[in-house]
Amino acid sequence: MARRLRIAQVAPPFERVPPHAYGGTERVVDELVRELHRRGHEVTTFASGDSIVPGEKVPTVPEALRPKGYAGDSLPYMQLTIQKLLARANEFDVIHSHLEWANLLVARVSPVPVVSTFHGRLDLPWAEDLLVDPPAGLVAISESQASAHPAVPWAGVVHNGLTLTGTPPTRRRGPGLAFVGRITPEKGIVEAIEIARRVDRPLRIAAKAGPSAAERAYHDDVFLPALKAAGSLVEYIGELSGADRDDLFAESYATLMPGSWPEPFGLVAIESLACGTPVVAKRIGALPEILREGIDGYFGDDVMGMAFVVERVEELDRDRIRTEVVERFSAARMTDGYEAIYRRVIGGSGAVGARSSDPDAGDASAPVPLHVSDRVEARAAR
Amino acid sequence: MARRLRIAQVAPPFERVPPHAYGGTERVVDELVRELHRRGHEVTTFASGDSIVPGEKVPTVPEALRPKGYAGDSLPYMQLTIQKLLARANEFDVIHSHLEWANLLVARVSPVPVVSTFHGRLDLPWAEDLLVDPPAGLVAISESQASAHPAVPWAGVVHNGLTLTGTPPTRRRGPGLAFVGRITPEKGIVEAIEIARRVDRPLRIAAKAGPSAAERAYHDDVFLPALKAAGSLVEYIGELSGADRDDLFAESYATLMPGSWPEPFGLVAIESLACGTPVVAKRIGALPEILREGIDGYFGDDVMGMAFVVERVEELDRDRIRTEVVERFSAARMTDGYEAIYRRVIGGSGAVGARSSDPDAGDASAPVPLHVSDRVEARAAR
Repeated sequence: MARRLRIAQVAPPFERVPPHAYGGTERVVDELVRELHRRGHEVTTFASGDSIVPGEKVPTVPEALRPKGYAGDSLPYMQLTIQKLLARANEFDVIHSHLEWANLLVARVSPVPVVSTFHGRLDLPWAEDLLVDPPAGLVAISESQASAHPAVPWAGVVHNGLTLTGTPPTRRRGPGLAFVGRITPEKGIVEAIEIARRVDRPLRIAAKAGPSAAERAYHDDVFLPALKAAGSLVEYIGELSGADRDDLFAESYATLMPGSWPEPFGLVAIESLACGTPVVAKRIGALPEILREGIDGYFGDDVMGMAFVVERVEELDRDRIRTEVVERFSAARMTDGYEAIYRRVIGGSGAVGARSSDPDAGDASAPVPLHVSDRVEARAAR
Repeated sequence: MARRLRIAQVAPPFERVPPHAYGGTERVVDELVRELHRRGHEVTTFASGDSIVPGEKVPTVPEALRPKGYAGDSLPYMQLTIQKLLARANEFDVIHSHLEWANLLVARVSPVPVVSTFHGRLDLPWAEDLLVDPPAGLVAISESQASAHPAVPWAGVVHNGLTLTGTPPTRRRGPGLAFVGRITPEKGIVEAIEIARRVDRPLRIAAKAGPSAAERAYHDDVFLPALKAAGSLVEYIGELSGADRDDLFAESYATLMPGSWPEPFGLVAIESLACGTPVVAKRIGALPEILREGIDGYFGDDVMGMAFVVERVEELDRDRIRTEVVERFSAARMTDGYEAIYRRVIGGSGAVGARSSDPDAGDASAPVPLHVSDRVEARAAR
């Protein structure tokens, strides 16, 4: 019944799709491409040449740039991606751009409708100015992220989804805590160590040290001394990915997310839940949208507050957590959300610059994306 | 006779126009805006809000970003500039973009003809890919710069021009050498010290230490020890601008440019010549186009070679150097060159993407820009 769409998915050139390890945007693009392809759409993915995707791939650079050590300005390579996209734009019914701020540029100049997902935080100094007279089709990955710009007529909020399988329930769960992230001040790694010491539970840290001078300094001057001071209670096991990371979650009593960085989504949270492992976190960013307090975990405002609730995790229903997160944040749910938005921007208007808030532009028969918040939609329709 | 043109000049948002000190692109934009305005054109300048220009100014950011300490990614703010430009593009007969690689994006999406000047080096990793199927109106500031991409149909090579006045000849010239630049390995500051020691002439260094960690490390670990080792022979006098810099040149026997960075142009060279001060340099980048060997100075391949020719500077005709450079590299000459190219891209075609190499697109009556090299033009016409 539904028409087969010609869809361009546009990823940044910095990590491959799917990424080897770190790279939330590219993981989500990977899931979306595979699910859209499975549903019969004609998907063309603009991504680094070492990406592995079903359907057609248009290499924007021969190899992903970050793993090769590129740490320079993003502009030339983002522009290269845009240039390759625009050269073929007319071949698509819809373009789905994941280029962060450059999304807006793509949306403003594309001859075909553009759906744009922002994957990072939006409360940045240039945001208000770039979002003046915003183009149609802008999508946030959480209400928290969207709320930074209430005047933007969001086409929807589509929570990220992953193919969550969790781990075999045969995995033996111990009393220890888990931390997965990067070794940076905003991810709260030192706070995680402090929580472990307060509750006297072992903590295993799977984390990556960043390449910048500031990150290296933090690693040497702050993280390592805190790790040493904690003695045998805390173990640093380097960077993990995929199955190893799931094993860590599955073997842990709870996962700590004590960072102060307002996660626009928080993939670590759903990965932990998919292993049946509750999360203890700060109530910031999108985490209150993902974690149902008293079901999936608990919130605390600081180290003392989070340490205080760690023991309550004992009573949570781990099977329910796992079963429900697989449904709540599946790749299929996410793809449902995006498909509905694609059909709306295509059906509503072929004209560039049409606003999704235009009452005449919407296709009333199009299903509302499953993860589109009513509140945000109502705001957009004003 | 000549029609008054509505011209947009588009500067990056990182330094104001004119810049307080460092900022070659912004100095050239300043000269061009003032001369075009003087000639009666309607000039609109897109630049940081603290810029001071005749005609209309469209602030792209409230204040220039670098002096305020911004060292982040260029993309969001360059995009803001492009967005503000495109919102008004239809008001202009021609857009002159100085946004480096983003020039190509502007030229590809603008509804009106775009002339683009590159101010930096073009032999960069992403260059070939971004210059595939190049848009019309691309201008290089030297043949050396253009030669990195022989397949590009350059609309012309227009040497930079400044309002060169030199300094009063009453200034007393001494036996010392001058170095003006930045404290980075590629500018050859340590080589300048070594040359001074070999020829036993005093050297005064007017230079700025960069803000990056690598630049600070070079300052501390390489420059300061070399300075100290040279004793009283070498004096470091910090960053100079305008009249103070001219005084330094005017008081010096010769200026040293021993850097290994291939200057796409080399404003320091013409500023020195405008004070009647010959230049001793490496034969790299655009310097052989600017410095006439045996008239304006001498070339040497390394420290020994440059030290060897320093004494020959004595015989050069300093009055001739000053008089001729003011004519050869005047703002008026540069503006003549750009005006001719503006009229050609406007007259040739209103269509986006028209190639300046298209024999039907050119206005045969338009004057050839005075600084357009025959060689480059011939290549472009192939």
